[in-house]
Amino acid sequence: MSTPMQKHEVKAQRAAVVDTSHSPFAGLRPLSVAAVRINDAFWKPRLETNRTVTIPFQYQQCEATGRLDNFRRASGHYDGPFQGRFYNDSDVYKWLEAASWSLASQPDPHLESQVEDVITIIGAAQEENGYLDTYFTFERVPERWTNLRVLHELYCAGHLIQAAVAHHRATGSTSFLKIAVRLADHIVDTFGPDGIAGACGHPEVEMALVELARDTGDQRYVQEAQFFIDQRGQHLPLMSGSTYDQDHAPIREQREVVGHAVRALYLYSGVTDIYAETGEQALEEAVEALWQNFMTRKVYITGGAGARYEGEAFGENYELPNERAYTETCAAIASVMWNWRLLLLKKEARFADALETTLYNGVLSGVSLNGQEYFYQNPLADSGHHRRQPWFSTACCPPNVARLFASLPGYLYSTSNEGLWVHLYIANTAEVPLVNGQTITVQQRTNYPWEGEVELEVQTDRPAFFSLFLRIPAWAQGASITINGQVYSGSIEPGSYVEIQREWKAGDSVHLSLPLEVRMLESNQHVRNNYRRVAILRGPLVYCVEQVDNPGVDLDAIVLPAQSEWEVVARPELLGGIQTIQARALLHASKNAVDESPLYRPYKVEKPTYTSVLLTAIPYYIWANREAGAMQVWLPVDPYV
Amino acid sequence: MSTPMQKHEVKAQRAAVVDTSHSPFAGLRPLSVAAVRINDAFWKPRLETNRTVTIPFQYQQCEATGRLDNFRRASGHYDGPFQGRFYNDSDVYKWLEAASWSLASQPDPHLESQVEDVITIIGAAQEENGYLDTYFTFERVPERWTNLRVLHELYCAGHLIQAAVAHHRATGSTSFLKIAVRLADHIVDTFGPDGIAGACGHPEVEMALVELARDTGDQRYVQEAQFFIDQRGQHLPLMSGSTYDQDHAPIREQREVVGHAVRALYLYSGVTDIYAETGEQALEEAVEALWQNFMTRKVYITGGAGARYEGEAFGENYELPNERAYTETCAAIASVMWNWRLLLLKKEARFADALETTLYNGVLSGVSLNGQEYFYQNPLADSGHHRRQPWFSTACCPPNVARLFASLPGYLYSTSNEGLWVHLYIANTAEVPLVNGQTITVQQRTNYPWEGEVELEVQTDRPAFFSLFLRIPAWAQGASITINGQVYSGSIEPGSYVEIQREWKAGDSVHLSLPLEVRMLESNQHVRNNYRRVAILRGPLVYCVEQVDNPGVDLDAIVLPAQSEWEVVARPELLGGIQTIQARALLHASKNAVDESPLYRPYKVEKPTYTSVLLTAIPYYIWANREAGAMQVWLPVDPYV
Repeated sequence: MSTPMQKHEVKAQRAAVVDTSHSPFAGLRPLSVAAVRINDAFWKPRLETNRTVTIPFQYQQCEATGRLDNFRRASGHYDGPFQGRFYNDSDVYKWLEAASWSLASQPDPHLESQVEDVITIIGAAQEENGYLDTYFTFERVPERWTNLRVLHELYCAGHLIQAAVAHHRATGSTSFLKIAVRLADHIVDTFGPDGIAGACGHPEVEMALVELARDTGDQRYVQEAQFFIDQRGQHLPLMSGSTYDQDHAPIREQREVVGHAVRALYLYSGVTDIYAETGEQALEEAVEALWQNFMTRKVYITGGAGARYEGEAFGENYELPNERAYTETCAAIASVMWNWRLLLLKKEARFADALETTLYNGVLSGVSLNGQEYFYQNPLADSGHHRRQPWFSTACCPPNVARLFASLPGYLYSTSNEGLWVHLYIANTAEVPLVNGQTITVQQRTNYPWEGEVELEVQTDRPAFFSLFLRIPAWAQGASITINGQVYSGSIEPGSYVEIQREWKAGDSVHLSLPLEVRMLESNQHVRNNYRRVAILRGPLVYCVEQVDNPGVDLDAIVLPAQSEWEVVARPELLGGIQTIQARALLHASKNAVDESPLYRPYKVEKPTYTSVLLTAIPYYIWANREAGAMQVWLPVDPYV
Repeated sequence: MSTPMQKHEVKAQRAAVVDTSHSPFAGLRPLSVAAVRINDAFWKPRLETNRTVTIPFQYQQCEATGRLDNFRRASGHYDGPFQGRFYNDSDVYKWLEAASWSLASQPDPHLESQVEDVITIIGAAQEENGYLDTYFTFERVPERWTNLRVLHELYCAGHLIQAAVAHHRATGSTSFLKIAVRLADHIVDTFGPDGIAGACGHPEVEMALVELARDTGDQRYVQEAQFFIDQRGQHLPLMSGSTYDQDHAPIREQREVVGHAVRALYLYSGVTDIYAETGEQALEEAVEALWQNFMTRKVYITGGAGARYEGEAFGENYELPNERAYTETCAAIASVMWNWRLLLLKKEARFADALETTLYNGVLSGVSLNGQEYFYQNPLADSGHHRRQPWFSTACCPPNVARLFASLPGYLYSTSNEGLWVHLYIANTAEVPLVNGQTITVQQRTNYPWEGEVELEVQTDRPAFFSLFLRIPAWAQGASITINGQVYSGSIEPGSYVEIQREWKAGDSVHLSLPLEVRMLESNQHVRNNYRRVAILRGPLVYCVEQVDNPGVDLDAIVLPAQSEWEVVARPELLGGIQTIQARALLHASKNAVDESPLYRPYKVEKPTYTSVLLTAIPYYIWANREAGAMQVWLPVDPYV
């Protein structure tokens, strides 16, 4: 067997998020996070906040809450009890992953030395045999690997490995990777046909191991990941046998997304990773069916995942409550992770569409504009009580947001043998390695998502023949393209990629025009609580009405006329610069008084009478950044008005 | 201090459910369960099933699940571990309470000896000092009274006391009461200003102690109950400080029903009991405000209580999901208990209305027609997966239903100094003691709730001057009364009692005519998921549509026209004899195909087109007694059709 480290040094500067470059069953190769410089008005300020506020703030939280002390304690450098929850190591790892991706985008000597210090603290806590989990130290050593279902031991290991891979890819340093390899080897030695049976109740280690295999070339890690997914649904003593942790059936037989949403989506991500390496058809079939069930029965219009508070779980098909949507920020991030993997495999726009919807709505709502407060749940309606918090005792969401944002540049493009794929429209400059070894520069200029005009300009020292694949979002009916000012005459199908194959010369430019009309969407009839309600969208953004923009209006008395005419209003001074949309709405005349009417009353058999009110909607992702008040995504509509 | 036993022997045959006969601040006195013989078509078969099937079946369950063995174990007659949950004693006590009320209605030597055997088993498990809880025995003795918040120790004691009081009132025997008094005395000795501080996380003992005081005349038990309710909201170490167990604020300051619904409603019942004895104004104010909040913001149209699965808790104001309504059967029963206490205090029809609604819908749905299967949750919409179960590991609901049904005769009437109050319209013969010492017989003849005609005939050996108070349900607009065939000319206000004061002679009869029109109710606008939906009711019954009666119809495609004309159809062969209601409904033409349409789709800006379908609705309480299928209470309505 090859020595993993040597083989992989060449990849050091390839800071890819999920590195399918050599995966036999993947259609696309990711770009390095370092290769793409986002410079737009929408994301750049958020990523700057992530780098300058969120990441330092979360480091302080890890220090203040004893998460770092737990490592110092394990290595004998801190004299006190273990602090916090048994899975708290994972937050430090996710912070390291965020910091690593950030270093890939932007050198930062202070952050780099902080990262190395934390890695040193972690390394000191590792045992001779590679084991590393600060919860299972001292008096808890005998409990190691005894409660895989509950105690997140392999989950923490998975986050360590993912962070180490990110650190290696982002910085070229192997300081953290060596720790990860020792831990992974210990896991490989411990679990398997000849070792302990079972798998972690919270999937995570599966995708981490596959990524480690990609980073080191050591295929044992893929086999180990496969071993773990094969354990599910076997009703082994270490597993629950329940839908909660997707242990109700063998993974190859699963067809409905069930149970704890983050666990589910992490598991499916791991299975997708394994398929990219092994090409096992039964895995692909399961993953495809699960995705179909998710997208046609269980996903929120925001991309949010997980309907139920109890068990943080998916509900039944079409069970999508609004006020009590659980829609954990981590679940939305997990959906981005899964869709990204599927996109890299299958090169189909539906996955990029889902990724974009989730990113701009279900994920972005999870963090405040100031980068310091987080939602655990992201409901689609609220009375004004649900507010973001600076931290949680179970603090999975904050560093999960930080690592996704820090790695965002890596999600914009991919390459294939045919050429360059543009997934997301965000102004940036990208260095793109073509399959022939040539590197070109692509400049993307756009004010997306506020405007639909996208300009892509190619810079190259010599002409290059390749295809440019432009994603046409499914909602972009009427999109048009010009190439160097000439109208593109090929077919432009929403929900697919348009392939423009030609020889590209320096200065060639493509202009994509996406119609950003305000759209009203309704739900499938089986989503009962959205009956005769619509959601308002524009481009990838879901809109909502928030009380603060509509003072004195009872949001529960609003009705939209079927033919609402929405006006887009640029508000550069508001919330860092957004576009609101406004329309004349109807106000149920009998219902706008301060409501002391009974809970149930005889139905009045008469057509409703309305007054008129100017309604202002804001993008959903930015709600709850001002004074507390009611919020709604799904608004009643009257088809007869 | 009087010796309690002697003083109370005279009450032996007064099987009152909540005995306010001597409560200084109660307006009404209950009738004995033994005084009322229900002989109608609706309830009598259910009560017979309760007596002949449910009670024996639950005894077997208590035996089969080790609940009785736990008592034998505690007294050294069973050699094995404690079985089941720490609160399992309470199910045996509730079974004993059910059996006791049943004996009050109908002698049954076999049941009586079974009851005495169980009491003997329980008595043998009692300790010298009166302590009795089979969980805290042997190795767990040191844990006694150390975790009041979680371990239900006083809750179990409360159920013992309630059962013993019922047994004493029903049979005249003091065998069980003596055990209860010893336990209660131990509690009085243990808790209080000079003893342990704190209260039980699950209220129950409070109302039990007040009832024991009423049964024994020993006022210390009222003081002890008051001590327990005074502990709440004081943030003592033994309490949680959370809304979950109503410990977030002193009880006198509580104004919103919050937290675990059964705990809340048991607590308010206890507080109401204490007020009946002490007349403390602050308690009355709290209870009144809590009731108002409950009834105008948080109760389901079925009377169900508790919106959330997580914490089995009340949600926010107007948070009333349908599919995921928690609406525990025990919470509905607790609401009956609370409203009964309030009715006895205040003599106001609103409490009897709430009690009746809850009894006929939220409680009755909790048990199958065969008396052997139970709902824990009683949702108002379902996809067909929610089915009743024969038992639960936490089996609070089954014996709670059994004890309520067995005591139902006690809820029909009360007396006051003015005369006789008729709360519920159920055919029966009742022996009514008047304040002057005279006993009259009242025959109630009715086919309620299927028909609205009620005949009350007085039999008396000599004329009696008293008032007859007839409840006019709030929905009964247009009710009319005749007395011996003469039209009653006084005012008849729905939602109040009509007082008919006269000298009654043998054979005098009153005929009450309640219009049982089919009613369509809508929700307050703030109940968002009931937007533009109506519920169908007739008399006290909430109706629902169930798939089995509407084969091939997608229940999510149904729309009611605003002017629906409902036809009542007697179906004597169906489900023991019910009345269905039928109407021509609309079927959304585009929506009835097998639905493979996307989860979200562009809103079609056009008036809906409908086809017509004959829709059959059944009473909500009887759903899920046939083949599994979808069910809905709240149906879409189109005000323009």
